[in-house]
Formats: sequence, structure tokens, C-alpha cells
Amino acid sequence: MDGSKSVRRKRRSAIGCALALVAILAASCSARTPPPGGATPVAAAPAAASQEPPAAAKQADPLSSWNAGAAKDAIVAFVARVTREDGPDFVPPSERIATFDNDGTLWSEQPMYVQLAFALDRVQELAPRHPEWHSKEPFKSILDGDTKAALAGGEHAILDLIAATHAGTTTEEFDSIVRQWILTAHHPRTGRPYIEMVYQPMLELLAYLRANGFKTFIVSGGGVDFMRPWAGDVYGIPPEQVVGSRAKLKYEVRDGVPRIERLAAVDLVDDKAGKPVGIQQQIGQRPIAAFGNSDGDFEMLEWTTSGSGARLGTIIHHTDPTREWAYDRDSPIGTLAHALDEAPKRGWVVVDMKQDWKVVYPYEQ
Amino acid sequence: MDGSKSVRRKRRSAIGCALALVAILAASCSARTPPPGGATPVAAAPAAASQEPPAAAKQADPLSSWNAGAAKDAIVAFVARVTREDGPDFVPPSERIATFDNDGTLWSEQPMYVQLAFALDRVQELAPRHPEWHSKEPFKSILDGDTKAALAGGEHAILDLIAATHAGTTTEEFDSIVRQWILTAHHPRTGRPYIEMVYQPMLELLAYLRANGFKTFIVSGGGVDFMRPWAGDVYGIPPEQVVGSRAKLKYEVRDGVPRIERLAAVDLVDDKAGKPVGIQQQIGQRPIAAFGNSDGDFEMLEWTTSGSGARLGTIIHHTDPTREWAYDRDSPIGTLAHALDEAPKRGWVVVDMKQDWKVVYPYEQ
Repeated sequence: MDGSKSVRRKRRSAIGCALALVAILAASCSARTPPPGGATPVAAAPAAASQEPPAAAKQADPLSSWNAGAAKDAIVAFVARVTREDGPDFVPPSERIATFDNDGTLWSEQPMYVQLAFALDRVQELAPRHPEWHSKEPFKSILDGDTKAALAGGEHAILDLIAATHAGTTTEEFDSIVRQWILTAHHPRTGRPYIEMVYQPMLELLAYLRANGFKTFIVSGGGVDFMRPWAGDVYGIPPEQVVGSRAKLKYEVRDGVPRIERLAAVDLVDDKAGKPVGIQQQIGQRPIAAFGNSDGDFEMLEWTTSGSGARLGTIIHHTDPTREWAYDRDSPIGTLAHALDEAPKRGWVVVDMKQDWKVVYPYEQ
Repeated sequence: MDGSKSVRRKRRSAIGCALALVAILAASCSARTPPPGGATPVAAAPAAASQEPPAAAKQADPLSSWNAGAAKDAIVAFVARVTREDGPDFVPPSERIATFDNDGTLWSEQPMYVQLAFALDRVQELAPRHPEWHSKEPFKSILDGDTKAALAGGEHAILDLIAATHAGTTTEEFDSIVRQWILTAHHPRTGRPYIEMVYQPMLELLAYLRANGFKTFIVSGGGVDFMRPWAGDVYGIPPEQVVGSRAKLKYEVRDGVPRIERLAAVDLVDDKAGKPVGIQQQIGQRPIAAFGNSDGDFEMLEWTTSGSGARLGTIIHHTDPTREWAYDRDSPIGTLAHALDEAPKRGWVVVDMKQDWKVVYPYEQ
């Protein structure tokens, strides 16, 4: 597979701009090992309030990768409000639900969604078993090395691609495939394993919220079965707290062995208006805090922040072309226009990655 | 509404045998307040092993409503096996997933599923807004007081009934309706609020498992939106740990207010082969312990106990016509035949309610 791997790598590099033609669906990948087990809500600790923490608190700043500023202050002030037991905005731990988009919010989504890179690799991997792909789009173009043509079909081409390359396995087989891939695949620009391209400030934020009695959930357009295998190790988020797009599933006993098969049909697209639906289906209550980075997160932030009581809506704005990427309105990946326009009117916090983050990736430390 | 209430009560009593004609879908109801917040996995405590607990442990038996016997021993031995850190069957807390059916497993489902009683009450409640129901089955028969005829359409009639009476509200409105109903409705035989008709031994079992690092989930054919409003108070199970049948949902902004509407279409029937599917969708990993009482739970137990390592499958067998009900093969509600036949071959524990439980309901104590 060494030869085909280098071919694949070359093809992958051509995909970057091709992806500028498409959008939606795709998903997520990985990060650095933060303190695990974070899913277990810790008894609410009093949150260090805001601007002027005492010397001791400063020393142990749980958000040490965040620069002082309006964004950090707003987050810390919100946590203080909802955890102050005698305060007017106190929220019991059982209702401290925080939801996070994944791609572009917890890890990098450029130059293409990690799950799309995974799907392209799967096409190469599965091609020998699918001779018909040599005359069927978008597979034909991918196998011919012309990813731009492959993805010219837009959203539908990607959906077809994801469905076909992700289906026909059992959930447990797919879990193994993802685990193996995520450990060996590398980001085309940094050469780092994808799981190292998570955002250090967001890892700290996840841990900080959990230490304050929050339950943290991923709510991503990415495939739920693509995220669950590594979200525990990387983000400290257990499988049941990962909400994502999903395939239809079928339970059956084959040759005496029970299995759950992933079918080639989409059951939920957990993006845009699909996010509040996914939240209601799986979490069953409205979050009080939500974090996203694109217009695909608009409805999740809208739903979260229109509830009563203290609410926090936060947008991660990609403003750092040197350490990460700078993009918003004109980017087909992570398009951010409507949500950015609405943020000031709705009191949403906008995090300026360049200004607000001391470091981006854990390996910079 | 007093007059119509007494009418309703009369009609309800006629429904008992009518329900003998139907099956599936329906759902759940309520119980007594156990120690709340149980959803938070406690650090694994060493489980008191089995037959001969020391005097101190005996005094504080966490399963004090269970009589000594094979069923209790099997449960305690299983918990000891998976929590013994240096043992060959140790399971880390993150994988200690236990799933419980609700109707007939955590609370009584006779003489009819509680959710069906709720749906029948909803028909009366909503009738003034639906003049067409007076000439449309199954509503016409219900409004005419002939529930037997109403339910003669079998499963489809019930599905229509649930869909129609549960739809057209937002998720938050429905939540309020259920909360109000569950506090005021009473069981036709005991006259107790439904939430007092939960099984004391099962409340103890839920707490015991959680004290041993398990996460406890409901996986019920009942409607998820019908169970979540009270499952926290009654079972200590938070909304995200309730899996159930569900309606399709739609997010929209109406008159400037974001809302999630429950549509008149079924998204998942979380029964039989739908249970492993619901488990995979929402929990994302295979349970190591599962508890049910009917053939509708067969696939959940099959899926759970066919995984590798130590597994526990348990069937609650309704054998007590005096304190509860006695039924299995010939009951259309909670039919138990295939799963009962398979239990010995598959090593599943069968709990004999009459023999194994000291008390059934919390109010007997």
C-alpha cells in the first residue's frame, strides 16, 4: 500500500481548492489527550470570577491559553453567574448543558473536512471491491485523481461519497477502521496526525466547564460514528455525548452473530436546523451554552440563547492566517456570514483566534 | 372537567381487556423518588461480593428489597466481576453501560401501558379542536366510549392514536403537558399516582449499579418525550440517558420565537430490533448489562449478552397476581414467550417477582 499511499497524498493536495466548491455534511477528527473522563460532571466548583483574579487563581488559570480580553471575560463571567448558588442566574448542574460544534470549533477543518479526507482514502481502499466505480461518479474522478471533478456535483456528490464509503460495514467494523485511520493519517499541511490539530484553548474550555459542573456535548455536522471512536481520548467526551450526522442502521443476526449494519442512507444531517433536532433527540434539553464557528451553527446558537435565564453563545472566528487559517464569508468550508452579522445583535461572543488565543495547537506549547 | 373526568374513568376501565387485543408501541410512566442525581457515575466502589457478606455489608444491603436467591446472587456476582480491578473481567467505568426497559421492567404496565392512558385522555382533551374526530377512527370510538372498537385496528390504530394526540405541540409544550398529567392521573386499580407504581427492587438496583460506576439508561418502546419529564426525579436518569420511540421533529422560528415541533410521524420505534438501533444511535456503545421483561426486549438482551467479556441479561418475570400481575405468553401486553424460552440457553437471569422481591412498590414499605 506504500505506492498507493503516495499517490493518494498527491491527490489529496489537489483537493484543497476543489473543496472550495462544496460544503456541508462532512465531519471531524482529532486532538491531543486532555484530562480524560471529563464527561463525568464534577461537583460545581466556584468559578474564578473575572478581570482581577487573586494571585493564586492566576497561577492556576484553567484557561491559561486564552489571552485576557472581552471573550475570555465573557466566558468566565457566564460560568460564575450560573454556578453562584445564591445568585439570580443559578442553574442546577443537571441543566448545565454545553454543546460544541467540532470542525473549525474544536479542531481545524482546513483545507478540507477531515472526514472527507477519510472518505477519499476509503474510495481507494474499497475500489478493488467496486469495479463499477470506474465508470460511476464521483468515484470515477477520484480514482482518476481528479477530485475537483469528483466534487463538482456539490453537496450531493459528497453525500453520495460519504454514504457509499461509510456503508456496508457493521458499526463495530467501522469503529475499528476509523481508529486505525486516525492514528496513521496526517494533515496535508502540517504533517501532524489529525488528532494533534485540535485547539488547546478549547481543550481547556471543555475541562473548565466540566470542572464547573457542566456536561459537555459535541453537536457536529460530521458523522457520529466517525467522531465517537476518538472523542473520549481526545476531548474527554464519551460516545453518548457525541451528536452528529448519522446513517440509517439495521440490526440483524447473520450466521448466528448479532450485528448492527450501517446502511447507505442518511438518517439525520446534524447541521443548521438539524442541530436543534439532533440536540432534542439525543440530549433532550436545551443547552445553556453553545460554541460554533460557522453558519451551520447558527440555529444551534439561536436555539440555545433564546431560552430563559443566563445563556452563552460563542463563535470561534478564524482570523489567524499564520498559525491556523483566516476565513469567514467567502469560504465554502465553514462559511461564516449570517451568524457573524447576527452576533452583536444577539449578544454572542466572537472569539478572535489571532487576538484571543496564546497558542492554537497543543504542540506549540 | 369534573364530569368528563368521571366519564373518562368509566371508559378507561373498559379499556383494560380491549388492550388484550393490541400490543407494542406504547410506553411508560412513573415511580417513587429514589436518591436523585444518580446519573452521575460515582467512582467504582468495590461491590459486596456474593453469598456471605460480612455483617456490616448485610446491614446496609443496597438490594434490601430483594430476597436471597439465584437472581440476586447472579446480579451481585456480575457487578463484583466487572468492578474488580485486578480481575480478568474488569470493565472500566466508561464502558459500564446498563440499559433498562421501562414498562413492566421499572414500573407496572397493566392493565394498559401508561402512555396509552395518557393518549386516551389527550383525545378527550383535544376533541373540541378536532370536530373531524367524531367521524374518524380510532377517535370516534374513543369519544363514543367504545375503546375496544377503537383499538380493534391493532398496532396501527395505536400508532395513529399516539401520533395524533402527541403531535402538533412543541417539545416544550409537550413536556409541560406530560408533567401536569403525570402528577394528576391515577392508576385505575390502585388509585395511586402512576409515579408510585414503580418497582422498589429496581430503584435499588439502579442506585446499586450507579454506586458501582455504571451509567444507567432507559431503553423503552415508550415515547422518549413521555418519559424524560419525570425520569430524573423518579429514576435518577437524566434526559440524555433516556432512549425511546420518537416522533419526527422540526425546528423553526415562528413569530420570532424558535421552537421545535413534534410532527405526526414516527422517527424511531424503539422496540424489538429497534432497541439495538436506538442504543447505537444514542448511547454509541454496546451495553454490558440489560434488563427487560418481554419479547420486545429480546434483541436488546441478545445484543448485550453476545458481546465479549462478562455480560448480564435479565428478565423480570411477572409471577405475582396478588401484589402485581401474573402474565407472560398469552398476554398481549408484555408478551413473554421467546425470550423466556431462550433465557436458560443464553444464561439470562430470570427474576421471579413473587419469589425474588420482598416488596413490589415503594409504598408497601
